[in-house]
Amino acid sequence: MVRVKVPATIANFGPGFDCIGTAVNLYNFIEMDFSGFPQIEVSGEGEGRISLGEDNLVYRAARSLLKKAGIEKSLYIRLKNRIPLSRGLGSSAACIAGGMMAANYLAGSPFSREEIINFATEMEGHPDNVVPAVVGGLAISVREKDRVVYKKLSMPSDLKIVVAVPEFELSTKRAREVLPKKLGLDEAVFNIGRTALLVACLSDGDFSLLQMATQDVLHQPYRKSLVPGMEEILKEALSMGMLGCFLSGAGPSVVGLVREEKAKEAGEFMVGVFGKKDVKARYLILDTCNDGATVV
Amino acid sequence: MVRVKVPATIANFGPGFDCIGTAVNLYNFIEMDFSGFPQIEVSGEGEGRISLGEDNLVYRAARSLLKKAGIEKSLYIRLKNRIPLSRGLGSSAACIAGGMMAANYLAGSPFSREEIINFATEMEGHPDNVVPAVVGGLAISVREKDRVVYKKLSMPSDLKIVVAVPEFELSTKRAREVLPKKLGLDEAVFNIGRTALLVACLSDGDFSLLQMATQDVLHQPYRKSLVPGMEEILKEALSMGMLGCFLSGAGPSVVGLVREEKAKEAGEFMVGVFGKKDVKARYLILDTCNDGATVV
Repeated sequence: MVRVKVPATIANFGPGFDCIGTAVNLYNFIEMDFSGFPQIEVSGEGEGRISLGEDNLVYRAARSLLKKAGIEKSLYIRLKNRIPLSRGLGSSAACIAGGMMAANYLAGSPFSREEIINFATEMEGHPDNVVPAVVGGLAISVREKDRVVYKKLSMPSDLKIVVAVPEFELSTKRAREVLPKKLGLDEAVFNIGRTALLVACLSDGDFSLLQMATQDVLHQPYRKSLVPGMEEILKEALSMGMLGCFLSGAGPSVVGLVREEKAKEAGEFMVGVFGKKDVKARYLILDTCNDGATVV
Repeated sequence: MVRVKVPATIANFGPGFDCIGTAVNLYNFIEMDFSGFPQIEVSGEGEGRISLGEDNLVYRAARSLLKKAGIEKSLYIRLKNRIPLSRGLGSSAACIAGGMMAANYLAGSPFSREEIINFATEMEGHPDNVVPAVVGGLAISVREKDRVVYKKLSMPSDLKIVVAVPEFELSTKRAREVLPKKLGLDEAVFNIGRTALLVACLSDGDFSLLQMATQDVLHQPYRKSLVPGMEEILKEALSMGMLGCFLSGAGPSVVGLVREEKAKEAGEFMVGVFGKKDVKARYLILDTCNDGATVV
């Protein structure tokens, strides 16, 4: 029996579309063991809705890793989920990364963390949730052919991550369909410059330019219509004392970067704006989590 | 009489298209004074070719600044140029930034460095040469409406910048015309991820990922045909001991980032490849220059 703790992740961090994500201190727990017959139990987020069959994502991830290791035994899986589903908080990356980490442990650890990152990215499609889910921290991920190369940064410890989580779900697939296939060179330059600024600001703890350094034109403008209230929150974020504000992953959650003393106010403001649009929401005050998926 | 020393700059630094540039220790000197009648003298690079009339770039930059200051006096300008023209080393940004800095001094310094950056960027069209020419160091520049916002980083001191400078010239205008107006989201993501990696690597002096962190797909692939030899140099750079390699600005110069002991070898290699393509070239071993345009 193994027990893995795997963090939620915030991808598309500001302008870092498909490249930058951070792990936060909100976790799913995966218990896994070989057993005489397959069995899956779920409690917490997704209870009663998540499949308990062979298409369960944790199960599929575990099976895929075990197959690479040449193991065909049945699995008992018990999930205790705290990460809300389809809200842009990396629940699927957590299932894939956590499922693979657990299976790898049960198999006698035939694969390295780097290999698991590559397997999980292949399954998830993008590395920006997977990498921080596996290694923790704020991670920059780039792909070169089949390989993911990453660099982990530490977030300034005095920066709180406030996430407003709407009640409604938004599938990543649907959120991706609204993006144009082509963009202007000037739009790419917009995000490239902000990304450079973001990494520089986080590296030296300079918050003065964070507001500008978290701007994006590659995905947020197209996802406005899918997330009522987002545009208003982004517009007011600075005047509400937030240092930066952006969509979490593909949405619908919205992230505010704030100093500790402003965290509650920022959360209430965001939930309030969602409320005006008849979107029920709650907020979480989170920290970057420096550990990725861990056997506990 | 004022004398300004202004550095050459390497823009489009790796994946940082239109956003990241560094000042290097290769300078133009601009002497300027109010005089009874306009006069321009040039020695060094561009001598005998650079206009001595009203369309001289230093003159135009100085005039434009003096106009904002409400001054109409005639100018005496003497240029001692060391920065080669139209080779991707920021000679025009040096003329504009240096000319404005000199004129500002003569006018009694009515404008701040930030204002000069905005004026110079408006005249040059892009901030990535202008900003390091004015403030020095490795600079990240982004535009917000009419304003340029920048952040200066220091380059790791053990990194040498070797520049192979072909004898032929390539106008930025022509080099820009070959770029497509639209690009794929995956291409933008390619440069965004590498840019994040580049800033992270330079911030903490981690050279292990620099090769990957200096890759670009936004402009280099389209400029291959304009710079014979570039493709071969980029392909061999890693095996020749270079930590990173990319086109300098819009080209045709090519930059190799190397440790000091590899600098000569890298320069000779690049010049050798250019030679095989019948392109005469020389190489310069440079350092980042932490000061921008300075009154000396």
